[in-house]
Amino acid sequence: MRRAKIAVVGATGMVGRAFLRVLEEYGMQQYSYTLFASAKSAGEKLRFLGRDFEVRELREDSFSEGFDIALFSAGASVSERFAPIAAGSGAVVIDNSSRWRMDPEVPLVVPEVNPGDIELSRGIIANPNCSTIQAVVALAPLQREYGIERIVYTTFQAVSGAGRGGWEDLEAGVRDHLSGGHTPPKKFSQGIFGNCIPQIDLFQPDGYTKEEHKLMDETRKILHAPDMAITATAVRVPVFNSHSEAINVELKKDFSLEDIRRLLAESPGIELLDQPENGVYPLAREATGQDLVLVGRLRRDPSRENSLDMWVCADNIRKGAAANAVQIAEIILKNLREAGRA
Amino acid sequence: MRRAKIAVVGATGMVGRAFLRVLEEYGMQQYSYTLFASAKSAGEKLRFLGRDFEVRELREDSFSEGFDIALFSAGASVSERFAPIAAGSGAVVIDNSSRWRMDPEVPLVVPEVNPGDIELSRGIIANPNCSTIQAVVALAPLQREYGIERIVYTTFQAVSGAGRGGWEDLEAGVRDHLSGGHTPPKKFSQGIFGNCIPQIDLFQPDGYTKEEHKLMDETRKILHAPDMAITATAVRVPVFNSHSEAINVELKKDFSLEDIRRLLAESPGIELLDQPENGVYPLAREATGQDLVLVGRLRRDPSRENSLDMWVCADNIRKGAAANAVQIAEIILKNLREAGRA
Repeated sequence: MRRAKIAVVGATGMVGRAFLRVLEEYGMQQYSYTLFASAKSAGEKLRFLGRDFEVRELREDSFSEGFDIALFSAGASVSERFAPIAAGSGAVVIDNSSRWRMDPEVPLVVPEVNPGDIELSRGIIANPNCSTIQAVVALAPLQREYGIERIVYTTFQAVSGAGRGGWEDLEAGVRDHLSGGHTPPKKFSQGIFGNCIPQIDLFQPDGYTKEEHKLMDETRKILHAPDMAITATAVRVPVFNSHSEAINVELKKDFSLEDIRRLLAESPGIELLDQPENGVYPLAREATGQDLVLVGRLRRDPSRENSLDMWVCADNIRKGAAANAVQIAEIILKNLREAGRA
Repeated sequence: MRRAKIAVVGATGMVGRAFLRVLEEYGMQQYSYTLFASAKSAGEKLRFLGRDFEVRELREDSFSEGFDIALFSAGASVSERFAPIAAGSGAVVIDNSSRWRMDPEVPLVVPEVNPGDIELSRGIIANPNCSTIQAVVALAPLQREYGIERIVYTTFQAVSGAGRGGWEDLEAGVRDHLSGGHTPPKKFSQGIFGNCIPQIDLFQPDGYTKEEHKLMDETRKILHAPDMAITATAVRVPVFNSHSEAINVELKKDFSLEDIRRLLAESPGIELLDQPENGVYPLAREATGQDLVLVGRLRRDPSRENSLDMWVCADNIRKGAAANAVQIAEIILKNLREAGRA
């Protein structure tokens, strides 16, 4: 049996490096890896699986040697150009950009929620937006058992979601606070230190941002609920890593909180942290570095029938990007093994 | 005509000092002032109106000399004990603590919203919670013109709302980030730097915090809408000053966004900052140091009839506490002048 071959595209970026870390931690050292990045980063050495990998330049012929899986995290324009080439060469592309997510021919997958959609792939599988992934892991059990009538999302998103530039803007703000400096922001429209910026990505004509539309549209696609009523406010906060989300959800049926707690505690990918009276609730800082979605502060919303409030935290670089993609890859590799192809 | 006499109780605290700053800025130097604090701070000198005021110890006989107005910002237990004494001596107490807010005999006043309630006072007027004040300034015009069916509040609250200890916790976190230190939090249950803490004040049996109940209960009282449907999630964020709030509101009638924008722009106490495509929206850092409530990111929420989303920022120490109290005092002093009593 041959070793499956995996390409990592955009290996030097923040999510690309997280891909490598997660692949190591998930014990996937038995596969053969090739790392790609833009010409600018080509030649860099990355430590991975105990040895130094030289990063290769991503080119049109990069996939001609034949890969089983290509993990892409290099932005929408790179995915637009290279994902079809990789898929055409026989690889299953797992793409972390926004480019293919809403394409009706491309499955949008969170393994705990809609793993069956992987089989619908024609070569490209999209990894959802970070803020969507953690939300649907928490909401899918509710949708399955009770049906969801409406969602009001309010997000508290970490700067790591904006890549290294976002991280550096917050670091610069921290230093300026102590030194009295005034470093202009590079990534964000405003200084993020000591601020909350109610804009992530560009504004659309309806007044919502693209990030807010991702939350609404991707939730509907992943939950197979094209008409689900959803609104969203997406906010960047001065947190380095891990997104927090306040989710108000109206269900189609009545519930008991105890049943909801039991349901969520038994659902895959969730750690229920819901003993507020003992100070136990999800926190961004505790979500960082692991791959579970932390759910807590469950309470019955008295302002509407069948409604509840919850608070959801997850590591946006890991479960919100790299780990979700690697979990998809694990399923594909298992399918390949079972088909005797790897 | 004699000079009105004003007592400032809790003068050395964060809000107390803001009282003094706002009184100076509002041109209220024509009155006679006496500053009180606990025995611990008595004897301190505070610079105010160009001279040094010696802070006196607050005692049961402190009000016997006769004040027209007593501005209290010294916590609920001090207010419980001393506000009735001050009121009994003839002063109108404007109390910034939570102690009297929900007392049916005590008006809870935001001057732009329910100034008429001042006249119902029997000696104590309560200043609402910071997170409530900015919300109702934005919502009162909507309630008046359209009627409000339901509110979903999600708050992003600054550490200054927790007093000097909250501020110091964030400062310590900033220093630790650069030094690698691990200063334990003093005021908050968790480190606030790089974190979002979904707990402000204590948890109640229904799973909501006291802060969330303040938002719900005080909104209803100020808007004279005892049955208004409201839910809230109140979150502490690593911002030094000014609260931000995502407010989802369902109205009783249909609306056009243009009408809502015009209505809010014409309403007292509001600065409409709603040109997101030009990067114009409310920000905590821009709200700090002034007394308007900044409102923006107005958009029609497609998930529910007659609903809209908005983003509201204000300086929680000024409009959320000191400035609101001083604005109440201005109305009372005007009434006294018109009655020939000051």
